[in-house]
Amino acid sequence: MAVGELPFPSMPPIKGVRLATAGAAIKRTGRDDVLLFALPEYGTVAGVFTQNAFCAAPVLICRQHLAAASGRFLIINAGNANACTGEQGKRDALSVCQAVAEQADSNPQQVLPFSTGVIGEPLPVSKITAVVPQLFADLKEDHWLGAARAIMTTDTRPKGATRQVTIDGQMITVNGIAKGSGMINPNMATLLSFIATDAGVEQRLLQAIIAEAANLSFNRITIDGDTSTNDSCMLLASGASGVRVSDRSSEAYRQLQQAVNEVCSELARAVVADGEGATKFVTLDVKGGGNGDECLQVAYAVAHSPLIKTALFASDPNWGRIVAAIGYAGVPELDPSLVQVHLNEVQIVTDGERASDYTEAQGQAVMQGEHITIRIDLGRGQAEEVLWTTDLSYEYVRINADYRT
Amino acid sequence: MAVGELPFPSMPPIKGVRLATAGAAIKRTGRDDVLLFALPEYGTVAGVFTQNAFCAAPVLICRQHLAAASGRFLIINAGNANACTGEQGKRDALSVCQAVAEQADSNPQQVLPFSTGVIGEPLPVSKITAVVPQLFADLKEDHWLGAARAIMTTDTRPKGATRQVTIDGQMITVNGIAKGSGMINPNMATLLSFIATDAGVEQRLLQAIIAEAANLSFNRITIDGDTSTNDSCMLLASGASGVRVSDRSSEAYRQLQQAVNEVCSELARAVVADGEGATKFVTLDVKGGGNGDECLQVAYAVAHSPLIKTALFASDPNWGRIVAAIGYAGVPELDPSLVQVHLNEVQIVTDGERASDYTEAQGQAVMQGEHITIRIDLGRGQAEEVLWTTDLSYEYVRINADYRT
Repeated sequence: MAVGELPFPSMPPIKGVRLATAGAAIKRTGRDDVLLFALPEYGTVAGVFTQNAFCAAPVLICRQHLAAASGRFLIINAGNANACTGEQGKRDALSVCQAVAEQADSNPQQVLPFSTGVIGEPLPVSKITAVVPQLFADLKEDHWLGAARAIMTTDTRPKGATRQVTIDGQMITVNGIAKGSGMINPNMATLLSFIATDAGVEQRLLQAIIAEAANLSFNRITIDGDTSTNDSCMLLASGASGVRVSDRSSEAYRQLQQAVNEVCSELARAVVADGEGATKFVTLDVKGGGNGDECLQVAYAVAHSPLIKTALFASDPNWGRIVAAIGYAGVPELDPSLVQVHLNEVQIVTDGERASDYTEAQGQAVMQGEHITIRIDLGRGQAEEVLWTTDLSYEYVRINADYRT
Repeated sequence: MAVGELPFPSMPPIKGVRLATAGAAIKRTGRDDVLLFALPEYGTVAGVFTQNAFCAAPVLICRQHLAAASGRFLIINAGNANACTGEQGKRDALSVCQAVAEQADSNPQQVLPFSTGVIGEPLPVSKITAVVPQLFADLKEDHWLGAARAIMTTDTRPKGATRQVTIDGQMITVNGIAKGSGMINPNMATLLSFIATDAGVEQRLLQAIIAEAANLSFNRITIDGDTSTNDSCMLLASGASGVRVSDRSSEAYRQLQQAVNEVCSELARAVVADGEGATKFVTLDVKGGGNGDECLQVAYAVAHSPLIKTALFASDPNWGRIVAAIGYAGVPELDPSLVQVHLNEVQIVTDGERASDYTEAQGQAVMQGEHITIRIDLGRGQAEEVLWTTDLSYEYVRINADYRT
């Protein structure tokens, strides 16, 4: 189940960014579940990672390698998260890096590992290393749909986004793919995302670009409030276009940032629309806060309320549950009589009470749609934050009750 | 659906505490949905209330009345919460108090109103006031089961608890009833609870007793993380036994506190066992915290995780989701390698990793049971907190998707 149709976009190759996928039968056979990215020697890589204290072995190794060397290869597997696997998990992630480095005649520190799937099971290293030669043989620039498919777990469809922008008279491309449909929460949850461009960007600037883009996109979505151990959002710059972005105050930088933001935002919304069991795509727009944090507090209280999520699933405009969630969000000295709530364009709460001219029929008309915006005005300031989430359906329970069986 | 059998206990009458119920057809006909408590002139009442900023009209009025006079009558209706109803809601709650006071030839400030049910609909005042004469005609001391039934909403069974204790050579009784099965969270959610004793206790002491008891019971349960607008937990003391508890340092005070704590704790656990769609009763026991707050942070992260709740529903010992929740709970500088986790007596995580001798079969054996204790040791201090919660089933979604239809 997923909200709406979302065909995979036509994604152009990115010069200098080569990809290959292979089937290693990590969780099941008959699909590609390993992905390799290869960059030229002069390429750069930056990324942001899960905040979970139990972060997975590949995340630990990836951070170490990024700090020690410039990344040239990314090796990703789906089906096993290699999380909560202790010292053995780190050795396993390193073994995979080693196999990739040997094949490429490179340094293991230039290899960045990523895993997603079941937590706490040992990584089947030999299954992955066995397909490394084939991966190198198959590397090509035109394989983005295959790459998006190879990293899926409970996702029902591959997710991609692309932008092209002319910088200094030359066109550069930004492509992105993502996987994730459960355990999605700010700070990125079981989300892997790989964005790449043919612009040339030094690592420090690339880090700033991906940090801003992730904060405005993947850190603004929530499905179930769970933050995974493995989230990683990486930005690769091949430099193969010849366009260099080197000055943070330049128009070129602003253009590239904008393109990466748009790709990340589109991917983040695609993750929500494919949320586990999702039947509604819900935008929470909270304004009138004294600061951004209190807007987010209210947005998350509404987004995480199982009572509101089930009402959304039932297309029930149960505005009482919405005001209850606003009330317990923890905003200090909130004055209910200043609070306004709209469902799309229909005002349901005026000055903290049910809007006098509101009818159930109006609310139901909005709730029947697949895309619902809950607009909340706290009436205490100028701050505004937007968050995306889903409803809570039978299907969510089924998927997560059955996941390991 | 509910966990296990929980027959209503045989509850003795409490001298001086009279009750009556009547059917006012507030939401549907064919059931009693209004409850009246009456205390003697010398009785006392204390209570604790929801922290929700959108607290309901009856909560506002109840607080005002308690501050202004000594409570003698409690009038409770199920089916309509009179919440988010603004000035009209307050006028409506006052009208109900007025009708009770007129019938009793008393002061409206001695009447305390309570409501539970749908939010945002106007209170059907005349339906309630119409049954007030009948309620007064029916007042009697032996009607606790009827009272527990009258306050139910989505509850599948009435909830009661009782204790008797000998103080200064004389037996006193503590009875309690509660309603609540969804929107249950710390700070009490849609929970109404009425505890009564025939001991005599001045209002200030009574307040201290109910505050402690509620904190150790109703503030330690969570079903869906939603905190309602109407929660109230009241303690009534008739004084009709002749036993007076007047010194906070006395053994009599300690004994009464203990009895009230036990009644509240039993009621709180009964609310969890009757949680909407609950098939499991889950105890979260988090120890080894640097302080109580971080134990609670971890306990709530686990208790609120839809991924863990659905795994519990599926009897799936998905320990990876548990460690992920511990990891994102937000405990500062948590060292995963010090974390131990048990399911009942089975150790599933040792030093942050899957226990080496743990087998799925062991975990599944625990998860098949209806009562599951998740024991977490953070390994960083001496604090410990216990929380009770449920799983998340199809039935929870069904109940909350259908509630208003």
